Amino acid sequence: MSESADTTYAVKLVIAYDGKSFRGYQKQPGQRTVQGVLGDALRALDPDASELRAASRTDAGVHARGQVVAFDTTRDLPEKGWRMELNKRLPDDVSVRAVARAAAKYDPRFDSTGKLYRYRLHVGVARDPLRDPHSWHVGPSHGRRDVLERDETVAAYLDVDAMREAAATLIGTHDFRAFRAADDVRPNTIRTLTRVDLVTPFGNEPDALAIDVEGSAFMKNMVRILVGTLFEVGRGKRAAASVCELLGATAKREDAGQTAPAHGLCLVRVDLGRAELCRQLESA
Amino acid sequence: MSESADTTYAVKLVIAYDGKSFRGYQKQPGQRTVQGVLGDALRALDPDASELRAASRTDAGVHARGQVVAFDTTRDLPEKGWRMELNKRLPDDVSVRAVARAAAKYDPRFDSTGKLYRYRLHVGVARDPLRDPHSWHVGPSHGRRDVLERDETVAAYLDVDAMREAAATLIGTHDFRAFRAADDVRPNTIRTLTRVDLVTPFGNEPDALAIDVEGSAFMKNMVRILVGTLFEVGRGKRAAASVCELLGATAKREDAGQTAPAHGLCLVRVDLGRAELCRQLESA
Repeated sequence: MSESADTTYAVKLVIAYDGKSFRGYQKQPGQRTVQGVLGDALRALDPDASELRAASRTDAGVHARGQVVAFDTTRDLPEKGWRMELNKRLPDDVSVRAVARAAAKYDPRFDSTGKLYRYRLHVGVARDPLRDPHSWHVGPSHGRRDVLERDETVAAYLDVDAMREAAATLIGTHDFRAFRAADDVRPNTIRTLTRVDLVTPFGNEPDALAIDVEGSAFMKNMVRILVGTLFEVGRGKRAAASVCELLGATAKREDAGQTAPAHGLCLVRVDLGRAELCRQLESA
Repeated sequence: MSESADTTYAVKLVIAYDGKSFRGYQKQPGQRTVQGVLGDALRALDPDASELRAASRTDAGVHARGQVVAFDTTRDLPEKGWRMELNKRLPDDVSVRAVARAAAKYDPRFDSTGKLYRYRLHVGVARDPLRDPHSWHVGPSHGRRDVLERDETVAAYLDVDAMREAAATLIGTHDFRAFRAADDVRPNTIRTLTRVDLVTPFGNEPDALAIDVEGSAFMKNMVRILVGTLFEVGRGKRAAASVCELLGATAKREDAGQTAPAHGLCLVRVDLGRAELCRQLESA
């Protein structure tokens, strides 16, 4: 247990979790969080390991397939060893999928060049026990029960063309201050979205819709507010063109749509390599 | 609460459930079963309703998206009313997806012309919190860790061509006595399989495999033993051609493969209409 590397180095982990039973990624006293659970497993292997640094602080209830975290250690374990030993100590709802070494103090948040989030929703008159845990069930309580009784497809229930039109206006670099939680007060509200794709049928299921949102960086609740706003466009409660007016320094949170439920959202992938990219640019 | 139809009629339900917290479909004293939970909800609406009749008695842990059940009642509720009132009284892990009226004593088991089961598996070095509840995780404990460390794809880990070859030999009408649980003692062991399809990548995921098995009727654990046997072919522990020898009146359960875990299996669909078909043939 006491193999020690000559020097401190960082271990980078790709982790997956089911967000249902976590109060989000970030550690909070007295709450079950991903950072807390993973930190406990880590300290059992190396009591001197640093605190965990994550690419994204996912909200309570949000899932992840490709979250990236890192920590510093002097313990000399091979990459596979870290994965196996951590997974042995982790509960069923979180796992380490891949491990790589990096230079000490490596921080995935600053190394990230972009992230891909996927939001899943499905329409239907009744609950769906197999999909509801990971997909927003849009049902009669959202209106138009008559449509759903006749035709349980996304295409019948939502104006997907209008949603795509609205989504297209979001691509690019804008001031997204209207699309963040009221308590997110970071001064810089400029973000870049590179992709907002609506896929339906999704997985051959005509009642399912996936909204893939890719961008450089995100603010608190940003994807969920985007989805909530697009949903209102799809339901005909908001014109596609009006979404343009939500971009810019004078736009207000209350003019955007509701925050879509957390359990439909998954952090699919974090793209890394910014540090290396900068190094290459500097030496060029 | 006391609207009563002139005569007894049957209500046919398409139901879905997450099998995780059920000891299977069929009622058992002191156990949480789908039939038990659904029966409790039904009796709250009609204390005089008959016992439930189901198309399939799914094993403990098996999921369903399209199980069909029926009961007799005299209570005059519209189809939507049955669905809504039952769903209000059901827990999150079971739901009524569709309702139709039928003649009294309608029994989906005898009206079924075929069923589609889907078995899902995924390969990988580590657990996957988002897929493990509904898919068999095949990992290093099944051998060939080195392959998985290099390439986490079904195509690298399993000989899918050999599995397809073996699957093809299963199509048709055979004596499947080697493919049933030891405690299933029904005399007729002849069954017809119309389709055994292996799909990988599944849902765009190269580490996922779906095995779709369609047939007229199934014995206890039949799909899970088929999958366990195909898995052994995929791992090179059994020749594809040898699967032929497992068909026939002299084949033995112990010569077939292991029973694959229940949680990878889902009853996707029950095809109905046998009664109507027979009626047409008789009058032709």
